Amino acid sequence: MIPSIGYAAKNSFSRLRPFAFEREEAGASEVEIAVMFCGICHSDIHQVKNEWSNTVYPCMPGHEVVGRVTRVGSAVSRHQVGDIVGVGCMIDSCRQCEPCRAGDENYCEGPNSWLATYNGPMMPAKMAPTGTNMYARDNTFGGYSDTLVVKEDFVLKIPAALRPEVAAPILCAGVTTYSPMKHWGVKTGDRVGIIGFGGLGDMAAKLAKAMGAEVTVFTTTEDKLADAERIGARGVLESDQKALKELMLSFDFILSTIPEKHDLNPFIPLLKRDSTIVVVGALEPLAAVNNQQVAFHRKSVAGSLIGNLADTQEVLEFCAEHGIGPDIQIVPIQEVNDAYKRVEKGEVRFRYVIDMATLKREEMA
Amino acid sequence: MIPSIGYAAKNSFSRLRPFAFEREEAGASEVEIAVMFCGICHSDIHQVKNEWSNTVYPCMPGHEVVGRVTRVGSAVSRHQVGDIVGVGCMIDSCRQCEPCRAGDENYCEGPNSWLATYNGPMMPAKMAPTGTNMYARDNTFGGYSDTLVVKEDFVLKIPAALRPEVAAPILCAGVTTYSPMKHWGVKTGDRVGIIGFGGLGDMAAKLAKAMGAEVTVFTTTEDKLADAERIGARGVLESDQKALKELMLSFDFILSTIPEKHDLNPFIPLLKRDSTIVVVGALEPLAAVNNQQVAFHRKSVAGSLIGNLADTQEVLEFCAEHGIGPDIQIVPIQEVNDAYKRVEKGEVRFRYVIDMATLKREEMA
Repeated sequence: MIPSIGYAAKNSFSRLRPFAFEREEAGASEVEIAVMFCGICHSDIHQVKNEWSNTVYPCMPGHEVVGRVTRVGSAVSRHQVGDIVGVGCMIDSCRQCEPCRAGDENYCEGPNSWLATYNGPMMPAKMAPTGTNMYARDNTFGGYSDTLVVKEDFVLKIPAALRPEVAAPILCAGVTTYSPMKHWGVKTGDRVGIIGFGGLGDMAAKLAKAMGAEVTVFTTTEDKLADAERIGARGVLESDQKALKELMLSFDFILSTIPEKHDLNPFIPLLKRDSTIVVVGALEPLAAVNNQQVAFHRKSVAGSLIGNLADTQEVLEFCAEHGIGPDIQIVPIQEVNDAYKRVEKGEVRFRYVIDMATLKREEMA
Repeated sequence: MIPSIGYAAKNSFSRLRPFAFEREEAGASEVEIAVMFCGICHSDIHQVKNEWSNTVYPCMPGHEVVGRVTRVGSAVSRHQVGDIVGVGCMIDSCRQCEPCRAGDENYCEGPNSWLATYNGPMMPAKMAPTGTNMYARDNTFGGYSDTLVVKEDFVLKIPAALRPEVAAPILCAGVTTYSPMKHWGVKTGDRVGIIGFGGLGDMAAKLAKAMGAEVTVFTTTEDKLADAERIGARGVLESDQKALKELMLSFDFILSTIPEKHDLNPFIPLLKRDSTIVVVGALEPLAAVNNQQVAFHRKSVAGSLIGNLADTQEVLEFCAEHGIGPDIQIVPIQEVNDAYKRVEKGEVRFRYVIDMATLKREEMA
C-alpha cells in the first residue's frame, strides 16, 4: 500500500480537510502518478455537498489531474517514468458494452457504468441491475491528493507545449465542451453561442473560435463582457432583450455550460432551424421548455456528458496546436474551501487550479 | 364572392354553430374545392377554445380537408375540375425565405410565417417583425365548410387507392408523424416507441410498421392495448413500471403524440444512446426534463411541426401503396360539439371525420 495524503470532506456539511489514507500500489497495467496540479470543477462542489444525493464519504474530489509518472506496472507500454500525464473524470469502464467497444467509455452501459476518478462507479451496487460492483471499489479518491494510481489506458499524454497547470482543466472543462462541438459538427463559419462564462464557458468559447466559428458568449456578469472581447468573442448580457431579439434564428449551435438548473427558453429562439442546443453543465432537471419554441423550427435540446478518452487526448493536442488553454488562477490546497465559495459566487476567472506541491504531510491529523 | 356555409365558434366559450360567410372566388392560380370530408384534429379544439391565446373569432376550424375540384383559375396546371384533392394545415407561405426555397414551407421564416388553413397567418401582424400581414387575410376559414379556395401548389393530390374520408386525417395526423420519422431516419428493424394512442398515435404506429420498424405504443387506456395488437404493435401501459424498466436503452426513436403538457422523463431512459424523442403533439411548455437522463447517453429531445408539402404528398402515396390509413369514425357536422367532448376525453377510436354532405344551407341563421 502507498501511504497517501490529500484533502477530503467527511460529510455533506463539512469543509475539505487534510486526510491521510492508503492507495493500492500499481498493478501490472497501472501507472502511479505524483500529482502536480488539480483543477477545481463545479462538479467537485456538487459532489462534496451531496447535491446529487449519491456522495460516498469521505469524499476526495479532483478529476482534472496532471502529474508525473513515478512508477509503471510490468505490462505498461504507453507511459514511462517521468512522463507528464493527465487523468480526467474516468479511471475505468466495463470495456464490454457497445459504447465501450465503440470507444465511448463515457457512455458505458455496463452494470456499473464507468468508474469515476472520485466517488466510485457511476452506478453503485445499489443502483446496478446486478446489485454488485464490478470494480470492487466503492469510493475512489480523486486528485486532491499527492498520488494517483490509474490503469494505463485511462491515462492521457500531456503535450509538451502545454504547461501542466494549464492542461489540467482541459481534462474535464476542455473535453466536456469539445466533445459536443465535435459530435454536432461545429465548423468554420458557424455561429456558436455559449451560455455561461465560467470554467466551461471560457474553454468552450476558445475551442469554438479555434474551430473557426463566430462566437457569442451569454453571461449575467457585466464585467465579463470585456473578457469575451479579449478572446475574440462577442459578449451579450442574458438580460439584454434587444440583443437577444436581434440574434433570433442566427446560431448553428448553442452550448449551455451553466452548472445548475436554468431556463433555456430565452435561448431556443436564437437557434437556426434544425439546430441543437446542448446542455453540458447541469445534470439535473432544467426549467420546463416550451415545445412551441422547439417544434416551430424543428430544433433539438440535447445533453452530453464529458467526452471519451480519444476526444480527451484530441482536445489536449488541439489546445497545444492552437496555443489555447483555460484562464487559470493557481491556489494552494489550504485555500480550497475559500476557492469553492468564490466558484459558487461566480467570482473565479475562470478556473482555479490547485498547486498540489502545497500539500504537506505535516498538516495531516 | 362565393356564398359559403360552415360551422364556426364566435368566442372561446361558445359551441360551434352554423355560420354563413363569403369566400373570394378563385384567382388565376387558385383552385375552388367542394369539401367532402374534414377530419377533427385536437388542434381544432385548442384553437376554438383559444388555448394558445391567439384565436381570431369567428373561428372556423378544419385542416384535414378532402374535396372535389369544382373550378380552377386560368393559370392552374396541376389540378382539373373533378379531381379529388386535399388541403392540410397550410394554404400559403412566404416563398422567399431559406426554408421555403428548400421546400420546408412548414418552417417558413417569412415575417408572417405560413398562412394557416384556418386562423390566418402563424405570425399575425402584431407579432410580425414588419408589423404587417403579407397575406392580407387575418382570419382564414377552414374546412368545416362547403367550399375552400386555395393556391394550386398548396393543394395535394389524393391517390385513387385512398377513400376520400380516409385520406383526410393523413393531411395532418399522417404527415405530422411521417415527417419526423423520415427526418430522423426511421428504418427497417428500428425499434420505435409511440407515446399516446389517439389520432396521431394510430397513424404514427401504422406508418412506423410500414417503414419496417418494431413498434411499441404507450397508452394510459387499458382498452387500447388490444387496438395496438390489432395493428401489429406492442401496447404498454404508461403506468407499467416493470415493462418500462425492461425497455430501458432499447428504442432507436420515440415520438410523443400527446396533445397537451406531459412528462417525458419516464420515456427518456427508454431511448438508446444518441437517440431522439420528438414531440409533435404538444405545442406548449412540457414538464421539466431532467438533463441527467438526457446527458448520460447523449440523447436529444426535439420538436417537429406537421411536415412540408412534398412530405404530405409522399405520405398520401405511402399510405396508398402500403394499404394503410387512419381508423376513422364518420360524424355529421351537427354532432361536432359532442365529438369534441369525446376527443378531449380520449374516447374517439381514432379520428373523427366530418361528412360535409351533412352541412345544409337551411341550418344557417
